[in-house]
Amino acid sequence: MNAPGKTDSEDSAEIERAVRQVGARAKAAAVLLAQSTAEQRSRALAAAAAAIRAASKQLVEANRADMAAAEKQSLPAALLDRLRLDAGRVEAMAAGVAAVAALPDPVGRTLSEVTRPNGLQIARISVPLGVIGIIYESRPNVTADAGVLCLRAGNAAILRGGSESRHSSAAILASLRGALSEAGLPEDAIQGLPTTDRRAVGALLRLADCVDVIVPRGGRGLIERVQRESRIPVLAHLDGLCHTFIDAGADPAMARQILLNAKMRRTGVCGATETLLIDRRIAGAQLPGIVEDLLAAHCELRGDAAARGIDPRIGVASAADWDTEYLDAILSIAVVDGVEGALRHIARHGSHHTEAIVTEDKAAAERFLAEVDAAIVMVNASTQFADGGEFGMGAEIGIATGKLHARGPVGAEQLTSYKYIVRGDGHVRA
Amino acid sequence: MNAPGKTDSEDSAEIERAVRQVGARAKAAAVLLAQSTAEQRSRALAAAAAAIRAASKQLVEANRADMAAAEKQSLPAALLDRLRLDAGRVEAMAAGVAAVAALPDPVGRTLSEVTRPNGLQIARISVPLGVIGIIYESRPNVTADAGVLCLRAGNAAILRGGSESRHSSAAILASLRGALSEAGLPEDAIQGLPTTDRRAVGALLRLADCVDVIVPRGGRGLIERVQRESRIPVLAHLDGLCHTFIDAGADPAMARQILLNAKMRRTGVCGATETLLIDRRIAGAQLPGIVEDLLAAHCELRGDAAARGIDPRIGVASAADWDTEYLDAILSIAVVDGVEGALRHIARHGSHHTEAIVTEDKAAAERFLAEVDAAIVMVNASTQFADGGEFGMGAEIGIATGKLHARGPVGAEQLTSYKYIVRGDGHVRA
Repeated sequence: MNAPGKTDSEDSAEIERAVRQVGARAKAAAVLLAQSTAEQRSRALAAAAAAIRAASKQLVEANRADMAAAEKQSLPAALLDRLRLDAGRVEAMAAGVAAVAALPDPVGRTLSEVTRPNGLQIARISVPLGVIGIIYESRPNVTADAGVLCLRAGNAAILRGGSESRHSSAAILASLRGALSEAGLPEDAIQGLPTTDRRAVGALLRLADCVDVIVPRGGRGLIERVQRESRIPVLAHLDGLCHTFIDAGADPAMARQILLNAKMRRTGVCGATETLLIDRRIAGAQLPGIVEDLLAAHCELRGDAAARGIDPRIGVASAADWDTEYLDAILSIAVVDGVEGALRHIARHGSHHTEAIVTEDKAAAERFLAEVDAAIVMVNASTQFADGGEFGMGAEIGIATGKLHARGPVGAEQLTSYKYIVRGDGHVRA
Repeated sequence: MNAPGKTDSEDSAEIERAVRQVGARAKAAAVLLAQSTAEQRSRALAAAAAAIRAASKQLVEANRADMAAAEKQSLPAALLDRLRLDAGRVEAMAAGVAAVAALPDPVGRTLSEVTRPNGLQIARISVPLGVIGIIYESRPNVTADAGVLCLRAGNAAILRGGSESRHSSAAILASLRGALSEAGLPEDAIQGLPTTDRRAVGALLRLADCVDVIVPRGGRGLIERVQRESRIPVLAHLDGLCHTFIDAGADPAMARQILLNAKMRRTGVCGATETLLIDRRIAGAQLPGIVEDLLAAHCELRGDAAARGIDPRIGVASAADWDTEYLDAILSIAVVDGVEGALRHIARHGSHHTEAIVTEDKAAAERFLAEVDAAIVMVNASTQFADGGEFGMGAEIGIATGKLHARGPVGAEQLTSYKYIVRGDGHVRA
């Protein structure tokens, strides 16, 4: 949709210009933030929590406008639920911000230190990354979560929320910017994009001279687009196709409990188990009990021929099932030959996110932990623990499955870089 | 140049296929390497040093073929010198490999460890990155340096050297692969590309499903091409446009010594100073002595109006000079207003590589160290110390100026990633 009297290309040029201005302002703010103290940032974060609490009524009201538009468009119920803000959810958001205010400051830590034989002192010190672009979908609370996590680590944030939540996000943003200003920090440390036009996302992904890293949060379509188009490094995960492997050495009761939790606690999170791998040696004895639990929890089951041969209540898995992240009450089931077979299946179908083994056999556990190539590898625990909060990181901006920089939950510490500080006394090199 | 009877596109498809095969073999080798022990890798590295020493004659002979071809093409003398191998250089290469064999193993370190209130034990353990592609130019010894540094950190390497050094590199590669096999490790842990055709580089840069990181080493043209084309994360620096700032609080004698070394010790390295920034308050007193030193060392000087006003032996700097990495005996000189002016100049023209201040004024030093945004920031030392070896890292594969993953010298430690190991006792999430 063009502005009145504008052609597409005029419009595109204007969007590009406006986004570039946001980038330049973010970069200038990042320079000031890098010089701010931990205490100043903590003060701004506490003020942000207070501002959100104080604006609770206005936030709920702004959200009503978004909800009305979304209902008019007949958006799905799950999306409407993610979009909704009420007094309770605003309070939870404020509490989240207050928790980030209380996190240890990750900037200025001495990561390593050495005095060389020639007397040169070399220290590696953590510093903010700079400017972080966050592209997300409908949940308005991401505006607060992402903005304050960036601020905790001394970074400027450029936030691009979904168009459905634009009134809610704008109101939250206003609270955050007020708090920054109150604490003597630049308001431009947290900015939104000037338009929800999709082309603004493209423009942001090209701002390599202003933006240091992009964090997309949302569905596969969004992540794929960002990874394809971005000229800026991306921290993300495309899929969370997590497996739980029940080894012959598993405690059967523990295995049942872990699997039911791993699949069904919340089916829509990236750490939910999507595929059960079960050791052929105990599949006959243990699969029926597991099937019992899952059917009682209204989970659909799709298995290979061996699984179906053991329990006919299991439906048919197609080849595509092994590569599908359901994010729903569906579980695929494959019977495998021991740790070896589980490792082979995971190497072929895993998404390098979270993989678990259930076993009392120490050798099997150690082999699985060592050989699985994933951000998180677990023994005797539910894959649903794959979460920055559960890891003690206080908050997370997402989970990364790439191997560079940050792997696993991305918290405040992962939003830092480092620099070397070298102190000499007139040192020249021979 | 096509193979006989082949069209360009048939040729391209064949190159693509051959490079994909190298990638698949590297990935398979990386899986085995990730399971190898530090002791095995040390053994392979020691064997590699011995193999290079034993093959000294053959390496020098292979190099003769490269030298003959290069001389026939009338390549520049500096390039011929970089290309040349003699018994002394082969011994230096073997000693370098032996030094990497003696480096502490960076894999399997516990980076952090926590037991959560619910009893879940979470450890972050360093692991190899996987497969590393190294694209470099004429120096054949990079084949050994890069290959063994990757191996030290448990990574498979795909090496693509310049076509001028193809016989030398092939002979070095044969020594390394023999050593791998001797130590019971897969030969494919270190591979070359099947052809020096430029299209093979393009094919390598598209192998995102096999290769985890690309490290280009060479001139600006190569780095730019790699950064533009790569679908794989790149660790590199485009420029090393390093500044030395002589503050009003500098010890004048120390400043002269440091600057002369920073510029002239070796002019072709990325850590060489390209621009002198001098504080207006002491420029009149100190610049003439500095100019004296540099002219005696046959360095060309190009300054702004203020510098030329102080010493007419300084030539004229054009606007482009402030953004030029000379890699030669040329220095640009700008007179600036204190730390503030130096910071402003560096923010505008610096390349985020290495920046230095010379001063006895503690406040000026601390401000410079805190505010300059670069991988390495120095006080009272020559920028020529920007080197992994000088930092105590034993060896480096390059210097990175991006902010993600590795910043500054990239040694064995920087060639690792990590994974989270989570140990429970039947833990399910509430």
